[in-house]
Amino acid sequence: MTLALEPSAQDLLFLDAHTAHTFSDEPVSEEQIRAVYELVKYAPTAFNQCPLRITLVRSPEARSRLVKHMSEGNRPKTSTAPLTAVLSVDLEFHERLPELLPHAPTLKDTFFAEADKREAAGTFNATLQAGYFILGVRAAGLAAGPMSGFDRHGVDKEFFGDGKQKSLLVINIGRPGEEAYKPRLPRLPYDDAVTTV
Amino acid sequence: MTLALEPSAQDLLFLDAHTAHTFSDEPVSEEQIRAVYELVKYAPTAFNQCPLRITLVRSPEARSRLVKHMSEGNRPKTSTAPLTAVLSVDLEFHERLPELLPHAPTLKDTFFAEADKREAAGTFNATLQAGYFILGVRAAGLAAGPMSGFDRHGVDKEFFGDGKQKSLLVINIGRPGEEAYKPRLPRLPYDDAVTTV
Repeated sequence: MTLALEPSAQDLLFLDAHTAHTFSDEPVSEEQIRAVYELVKYAPTAFNQCPLRITLVRSPEARSRLVKHMSEGNRPKTSTAPLTAVLSVDLEFHERLPELLPHAPTLKDTFFAEADKREAAGTFNATLQAGYFILGVRAAGLAAGPMSGFDRHGVDKEFFGDGKQKSLLVINIGRPGEEAYKPRLPRLPYDDAVTTV
Repeated sequence: MTLALEPSAQDLLFLDAHTAHTFSDEPVSEEQIRAVYELVKYAPTAFNQCPLRITLVRSPEARSRLVKHMSEGNRPKTSTAPLTAVLSVDLEFHERLPELLPHAPTLKDTFFAEADKREAAGTFNATLQAGYFILGVRAAGLAAGPMSGFDRHGVDKEFFGDGKQKSLLVINIGRPGEEAYKPRLPRLPYDDAVTTV
């Protein structure tokens, strides 16, 4: 037993969990997503910048605005999932740093004053948070269906017209439906992914 | 009880876990890192591309080669942590796609033949995996100290001289030492991070 995490939690988050491609009709409540957020918000980002933003697409009108920017293979499941989340990076996350990192009040106007540096750091850290969020969805007993296949510029123009956010990942969320899972694909052996020097 | 994940696992991974800034002398074994990898390798990446590579810096010689590229504030802890991992993206991850995604054998020579697209996709997905890995370290009962403050080009030249990998994050790993933790910083309230449309 090398891991401290209980076997049931290992199964829930990693070993039995799969990306879902179909979903049941059971709704996903605001409370469930709030519980996910209140859990994963504590996982680390550099300088506590917390740049991830989550747009929950619920209304039929918003859903149709999203679906048209998804790649064709992702449209049917995004049309029918109980809930779809657009994960994005807030390119102006530095405005919140005085609250989030009160002991370094100058960072906002020094290191993070440059838009390029800010976008690079924000995108990296929001992507870490996207990883935490996927596991958080599973922690709520829900299945996640993360998708990279969509038109980023289209989604950004549609949902973030002020240019202050950029989309990173779209995730369908719900209980798995019929034939939700594809067979597990192979992973790289440890020795091909990990090197000791 | 909105979450399916046991409270003890919530504490271990998120609620009680903190970034560690000092570490005890207790070594971190190969078996522990292997257990982390065998857990987190199952978390999803797009097209199962699995682009994350992990370089475990163990020898005194390798450690000194790494420490000189860390920002000054990160040097003491990186010098003394029982183990330090350099997380990187394999820019030639597509070479493994025929094994990892056997039902789409042409992707390697079509979509992923372009170096720019490959680097963007690989960096994004390796960063998701970096998030999984941080939580995996915690799942092993260990503390993680992720650091973005280092000279990327320096580390890449030092450890990935063939240009086939790019560093993303450096993580100290071990049991927490004395005064390992700083006070918990605030996080964004749910309504500031999550929007419903």
